[in-house]
Amino acid sequence: MISHDDHLARILAAAPAPRVERLAVSGGSLLGRVLAADVRSAVELPAFTNSAMDGYAVHSADVNEPCELPVVGDIAAGDTRSLSCEPGSTWRIMTGAPMPEGADAVVPVELTDGGVERVRFEAAATPGNHIRHAGEDVRVGDLLLPRGTHVAPHHVAVLASSGVAQVDVVARPRVVVVSTGDELRAAGSELAHGQIHDSNGPMLAALVEAAGAQLVEQVHLPDDARAVSQLLERAVESADVVITTGGVSAGAFDVVKEALIDAGDVTFDKVAMQPGKPQGFGLLGERRVPVFTLPGNPMSTLVSFHVFVLPTLDAMGGRPPRECERAVVERGWTSPPGRAQFARVAVRRDGSGRLVVHPNSRQGSHHLGELAEANALALVPADVDVVQADDELDIQMLLTKE
Amino acid sequence: MISHDDHLARILAAAPAPRVERLAVSGGSLLGRVLAADVRSAVELPAFTNSAMDGYAVHSADVNEPCELPVVGDIAAGDTRSLSCEPGSTWRIMTGAPMPEGADAVVPVELTDGGVERVRFEAAATPGNHIRHAGEDVRVGDLLLPRGTHVAPHHVAVLASSGVAQVDVVARPRVVVVSTGDELRAAGSELAHGQIHDSNGPMLAALVEAAGAQLVEQVHLPDDARAVSQLLERAVESADVVITTGGVSAGAFDVVKEALIDAGDVTFDKVAMQPGKPQGFGLLGERRVPVFTLPGNPMSTLVSFHVFVLPTLDAMGGRPPRECERAVVERGWTSPPGRAQFARVAVRRDGSGRLVVHPNSRQGSHHLGELAEANALALVPADVDVVQADDELDIQMLLTKE
Repeated sequence: MISHDDHLARILAAAPAPRVERLAVSGGSLLGRVLAADVRSAVELPAFTNSAMDGYAVHSADVNEPCELPVVGDIAAGDTRSLSCEPGSTWRIMTGAPMPEGADAVVPVELTDGGVERVRFEAAATPGNHIRHAGEDVRVGDLLLPRGTHVAPHHVAVLASSGVAQVDVVARPRVVVVSTGDELRAAGSELAHGQIHDSNGPMLAALVEAAGAQLVEQVHLPDDARAVSQLLERAVESADVVITTGGVSAGAFDVVKEALIDAGDVTFDKVAMQPGKPQGFGLLGERRVPVFTLPGNPMSTLVSFHVFVLPTLDAMGGRPPRECERAVVERGWTSPPGRAQFARVAVRRDGSGRLVVHPNSRQGSHHLGELAEANALALVPADVDVVQADDELDIQMLLTKE
Repeated sequence: MISHDDHLARILAAAPAPRVERLAVSGGSLLGRVLAADVRSAVELPAFTNSAMDGYAVHSADVNEPCELPVVGDIAAGDTRSLSCEPGSTWRIMTGAPMPEGADAVVPVELTDGGVERVRFEAAATPGNHIRHAGEDVRVGDLLLPRGTHVAPHHVAVLASSGVAQVDVVARPRVVVVSTGDELRAAGSELAHGQIHDSNGPMLAALVEAAGAQLVEQVHLPDDARAVSQLLERAVESADVVITTGGVSAGAFDVVKEALIDAGDVTFDKVAMQPGKPQGFGLLGERRVPVFTLPGNPMSTLVSFHVFVLPTLDAMGGRPPRECERAVVERGWTSPPGRAQFARVAVRRDGSGRLVVHPNSRQGSHHLGELAEANALALVPADVDVVQADDELDIQMLLTKE
């Protein structure tokens, strides 16, 4: 048996480098994507000196006490004229409108009588007040967003306001999901004795999407090695990653193993973990596409995805490894000797900000009933057989999607 | 001026109740949605007693020491026959395959010689070992997922394996976004003097999507009250929420205000907050569609969305209010007197699990340059003018999307 760390290291060493694609800033597709390069500003912001208030642009020297001035006209936001303000006069000006040449202050409308032809100022103007100066926010060449930024809505605002129309992002890995097994039927179908509903297929499809990757296809195949081979041959032509479940154990009908054992670069291992012991990984086809063959028990699939597939999708997608936090055990449990256990647990933050772990009571690889209460996996090291209250463990949150 | 709490309370009191729609468990659309009702199991899991290992089904009494037995045949996963195991015989059985009547233990293949016609057992069998009993995981009527569950991939597995094909979820509010202003040009366009790029439109579109709502349309309109009126009339026929930006301040060209001031149920207020003072809210059209008129400065729009629109979309979308956490100030700043300040800050968790707040150095409502470094808003109460190091503040994380 090899350790899960060694198995993962071997996978990550073989995973292909991220691909780059160009996306428009508008249109919504940029949200949640990862920038492949630093984005610097080609412009200064504001691009022109403008008013921060609705009010009147003045020479402040003209308004050092309450007084009245003639209004030359209006300057609205979006006014493209090049205007100037002569001493002894004022322009009515709107928020965001370009300051007329010569004026050095804006008096807010609230401090005037709001006049249109002549205006009365109730108080003195302060030089520079309520003016946004060209370039005070962003200068040409400033770093707007660093490479690796995971684009949030406020980042979209930064890009759009700086006139950036397109950016380079890391392409989302395209993933094909294959669940195998004669016993599987689609969700909601009638079942005969001995049959079960396929939960791995829909779960993996959701995991792929929640990981920020792109699901190309999710298929179910019977226990037929030729069908598996044909599907894989087709999938590796366009997919970046293939994930199979089932058919890799010690049974007489383990068709995924049968289909791949002679395919060359796929290795089947026993990994010292529970659940998830029988694992396969390799590179298939001319494009050397990573193929994960995960065990078929739903909990084994869930754990294997988080431990092996997710870090690979993150690396291929230009994302940093997810943080592993430490959490304190509330109530102990037992763990199989000699194997790392990935226990389903509910993690919450207590009053003092400490993460606290409460285990699902049943940890069998087929136990799903309590899974709704779990939100994380807790890693019990291979040399620990009994987890005790107040122990500290590494935890990894289960994937969710906003 | 009214407080932001009062303004929000008035909005939430007027917001319509969540709508319900039915979605398929497969196909990916369920991920991230909110369950509108408890989901209980109509079946038991496992549905039939089955083997937990690849091995041999036996009468344990036959194998109380190393011995050999004749193999009747194979039982694969998905075998739909009703079989029985006579004393003195064994079936080769695969993981997940139905147990034959009479057998009370499975001996893993690793503890045998793996024979096909006769098999030699190297050790005694233990009654009940490696058997998953029908109903041991889930019973008919068990609560699988409670109402309000925010569906994650592992929840999809719970639903699929229990044979649930469709569930009732809260419908995502359909949102129309309108940015107004003659000065605005689309991202990437050439600008004349006095023009700027529209950042509010793309940002709001991204915010709506990141909030889990559904963007129907994002449009830009010039400063033309008739165009605004026409757009709103059309939007309220199909949208659940309309958000406008700009045109609601004290200027001479505030066309949103002009378009809505006589529309009946829209109220314009000065809210005691910075940024985001000029706010409008009301219900429009026969369908009484909530309309938010947000101020046009990008930071005012960003803050107004998080403070007023997001809680409304959450309520309409069946989600609980987002948690407001407390965080400790690292370095102080000043806040406008008499108004609550929503400061852009970078929040991180320090070594002891405490949330620490570091403010953007410029908090002007047009300052975008530093925004990439912010990940939260810190609320400085209206009666606080100076924030000091070690003060504790409420913070709200800026929306992101995985």
